[in-house]
Amino acid sequence: MTDDAPNSSTPPGLLPAGLMDLLPPEAEREAVLVETLMAAFAGHGYERVKPPLLEFEDSLLAGSGAAVAEQTFRLMDPVSQRMMGLRADTTPQVARIAATRLGLQPRPLRLCYAGQVLRVRGTQLAPERQLPQTGIELIGSDAPAADAEVALVAAAALAAAGVPSVSLDITLPTMAPALLEAAEVPPALRQRLARALDRKDAASVAALSGEAGPLAAALPVLLAAAGPADGALAALAGVELPPAARAIADNAAAVIAAIRARAPGLRITLDPVEFRGFRYHVGVAFTLYGPGTTGELARGGRYMSLNEEPATGMSLYPDAVLRAAPAPAPRPRVFVPAGTPEAALQALRAQGFATVAALSAADSPKGLRCSHRLVDGRAVPISKEG
Amino acid sequence: MTDDAPNSSTPPGLLPAGLMDLLPPEAEREAVLVETLMAAFAGHGYERVKPPLLEFEDSLLAGSGAAVAEQTFRLMDPVSQRMMGLRADTTPQVARIAATRLGLQPRPLRLCYAGQVLRVRGTQLAPERQLPQTGIELIGSDAPAADAEVALVAAAALAAAGVPSVSLDITLPTMAPALLEAAEVPPALRQRLARALDRKDAASVAALSGEAGPLAAALPVLLAAAGPADGALAALAGVELPPAARAIADNAAAVIAAIRARAPGLRITLDPVEFRGFRYHVGVAFTLYGPGTTGELARGGRYMSLNEEPATGMSLYPDAVLRAAPAPAPRPRVFVPAGTPEAALQALRAQGFATVAALSAADSPKGLRCSHRLVDGRAVPISKEG
Repeated sequence: MTDDAPNSSTPPGLLPAGLMDLLPPEAEREAVLVETLMAAFAGHGYERVKPPLLEFEDSLLAGSGAAVAEQTFRLMDPVSQRMMGLRADTTPQVARIAATRLGLQPRPLRLCYAGQVLRVRGTQLAPERQLPQTGIELIGSDAPAADAEVALVAAAALAAAGVPSVSLDITLPTMAPALLEAAEVPPALRQRLARALDRKDAASVAALSGEAGPLAAALPVLLAAAGPADGALAALAGVELPPAARAIADNAAAVIAAIRARAPGLRITLDPVEFRGFRYHVGVAFTLYGPGTTGELARGGRYMSLNEEPATGMSLYPDAVLRAAPAPAPRPRVFVPAGTPEAALQALRAQGFATVAALSAADSPKGLRCSHRLVDGRAVPISKEG
Repeated sequence: MTDDAPNSSTPPGLLPAGLMDLLPPEAEREAVLVETLMAAFAGHGYERVKPPLLEFEDSLLAGSGAAVAEQTFRLMDPVSQRMMGLRADTTPQVARIAATRLGLQPRPLRLCYAGQVLRVRGTQLAPERQLPQTGIELIGSDAPAADAEVALVAAAALAAAGVPSVSLDITLPTMAPALLEAAEVPPALRQRLARALDRKDAASVAALSGEAGPLAAALPVLLAAAGPADGALAALAGVELPPAARAIADNAAAVIAAIRARAPGLRITLDPVEFRGFRYHVGVAFTLYGPGTTGELARGGRYMSLNEEPATGMSLYPDAVLRAAPAPAPRPRVFVPAGTPEAALQALRAQGFATVAALSAADSPKGLRCSHRLVDGRAVPISKEG
C-alpha cells in the first residue's frame, strides 16, 4: 500500500502503510457511488448528518464506540488540552447527535452519513487505514419492521449502485449467550463452548454441550442449521429453547417475514449461533454480500443507542461496493481549440462532455487524453476520424 | 462553536471548539453543493483525485505545504514510528500526486479534489477547525490562458451552485517585492514600506518611497490605482517600471484580457501592490467574492509546484459558498402506511419524494415531519388536506 515515486528516489511519493491516493478515474467513481448510496437513503426518508472527523475521545468512545477504542487515533487538542480521537466509526457519533442535538425530535429518527474513517492499524486482509463509510441509523423503534427496513434500504442502495445481486446473512449474536446463560453453564465450560462455536467445530460443540446439560442441547442443532433462512427458522422452531432464546428466535422470524413481504427475491441466510465481530449488537445482526467473491459490502444490526434507546442500522463500505459494481463508461473528453465560443463549450458540457481547452500550440488531443475533437463545431470521436 | 446538550448535563453533546455537527438539512445541502462544484470542474476536464487525510509530515509540509505547517495537527504513526500530519490544505497533496504518481502523464494536468481539511486553531473571525475544501489545480502550463481558465472555471462552478454574481479580485504578490528589489531599497526601509503597504497607508507609502529613490516612485501610484481592472491596468501602463515589474504587469494584463475574452460580464478588480496572505504565489493571485457581504468564496493563483513545474489553481470553500447560494426547496416527505406496495413507493421516490414508512401505530405524518400523505395512492400535501 505504499506508493513508489515512478521517476525519483525522493520521499514525496511515499505514503504511510494503508493510506493511499485514489487517482482518476477511481476517485470520481467512488464519489459518484457514495452520492448514489446517499440518494437511495434520502429517498427512504433518511436525513444526512455530518459529524466532525475529530471529537473528544470520551464522547467518541462512549456506547458502541468502545468497540473501536483500540483502533482510534488520539491527539491532544491544544485549545482545550483534552484528548481527541479521529473517528474509526461513524455510528457512535450519530448516536451522540440523536441523543443530544436531536434529542427532542420525535422518534423514530432516520439519519444517514457519509465520510472517512481512520484506524490505527490495518490487517493483513484489509490493510487500509482510511476507509470511506456510509450508512443509515434508525433510532427509537424496537419493531422488527425497523430491522427489516434498514436491511432493505441497504440492499436497495446497493441495487441503485449497480450491484447485480446481494445476499443477506443474518446472525443472532445474543442467541448462544442466552442459551448458555439459561443452562447455567459454568464459566470455564462456557468459554470452551464459545471458542468451539467460534471455530464452527461441530464435534466439540456436540461433546461440550453434552457436558453442559439438557438446556444446551439446542446448540449443536442450531450450529448445523446455519444456511438458507427457511431451514434455519424451521430448526429454531423445532428445538426446545428457554424463554429468552425463544424470544430471540421469534424476533428473527418476524424480521425475516417483514423482509420477505417486501423483497421476496432477496436471498437470506441465517446462522443462529454465530456471534463473532458484532460485539455491540443486541438483536439481529446483518451482513450483505455481493455476488461471487466480492465479499462483505455492508454490515449492521440492532443495538442499544445512548439513553437506552433501541436502534438499528447498516454501514456500507464504498471501497468494497466499488469492486462489486460495474465501472461506468468514462466521461468523453473533447479537445477544444482556443477561441471556441463559450456557447458551444456550454452545449458540449450539457451533453456530458468534458471540454479540455488547448492552452498553447503544444497541446494536442492525444496528449490531453481526449476521446473527441471538434469538427465543424461538433464533437467527433478521434478514433473514427477520417 | 461548542454544542450544548439540550436536555442533559452529560458530556456527550460537547464538541471541541471549532468542530461541529452539520444537521439536516444543512449536511445534505453542503454535500449537494460540493458535488455541484465538482461536476462543474469535471465538465472542464479536471479529473478527481483523493489523497488520504493523513500522510507523512515531511511530504505534507513540502512546497506550498510549508505555509500551513503551524496549522497542521501531527500524530505518531505506530506502524512506521514516523510523524504524520492531518492535512490543513489539499494543494500540497495534489502537487505530490502530480509530481510522483502522475509524473509521466503529459502536461498540462488538470486535477480537482474535494475533502475535509483540519487546522490546529481557529481565529476569532473564522473559528472553524474543520472545513470542507474543493478546488482545481492546472499543472504544467505557464500561459496566461491557464490562469484565466482556473479563475473562469471557479466562477462557472459558483454560478452552477447558484451564486448570483461574483467578482474577481486580482493581486500581484510579487510586484511590490520586485519594485523594492530593483530600487535596491535597504532592508530596514523595505520593511517599513512593506508594513505601510500592508496597512494601505498612502501617506507613509508616499513619504517612504520618496526616501527609497526614483525606482520606488511607482509604489504610491500603484497603491492608489487599486480598483476596477481597467483603471489599475492603465496606471500600470503609465508608470515607469523596472523590467521584472514590467513583466509582472504585462502578464497581469494578458491574464485579464484572456478572462475578458471569455467572460465579458465578470467584474474584475486589480490591486497591484497588495501582497498579504498569498505567501507562495508567484504570479497573479485570485480571490472570488460573492454578492453583498457574503465574503470570500474562493482563492488561488499561480505557484511553483514540485520539480519547479509552473502551476495555477483555485480553492473553493463550500461553507462560505453555502452562505452565498440560495437554499434549495426541502425534499418533500410522504408518510406511507405499512403494506404500501413496493411499486408505489418506488414511483414516489422517482418523483423526488422521500418515502417515510410507518413502523408502528404510534407513527404519524406530523411526528415524522412529513409534508405529504398518501390518499388513494397519490401524495397529497398535508396542509391542503380537506
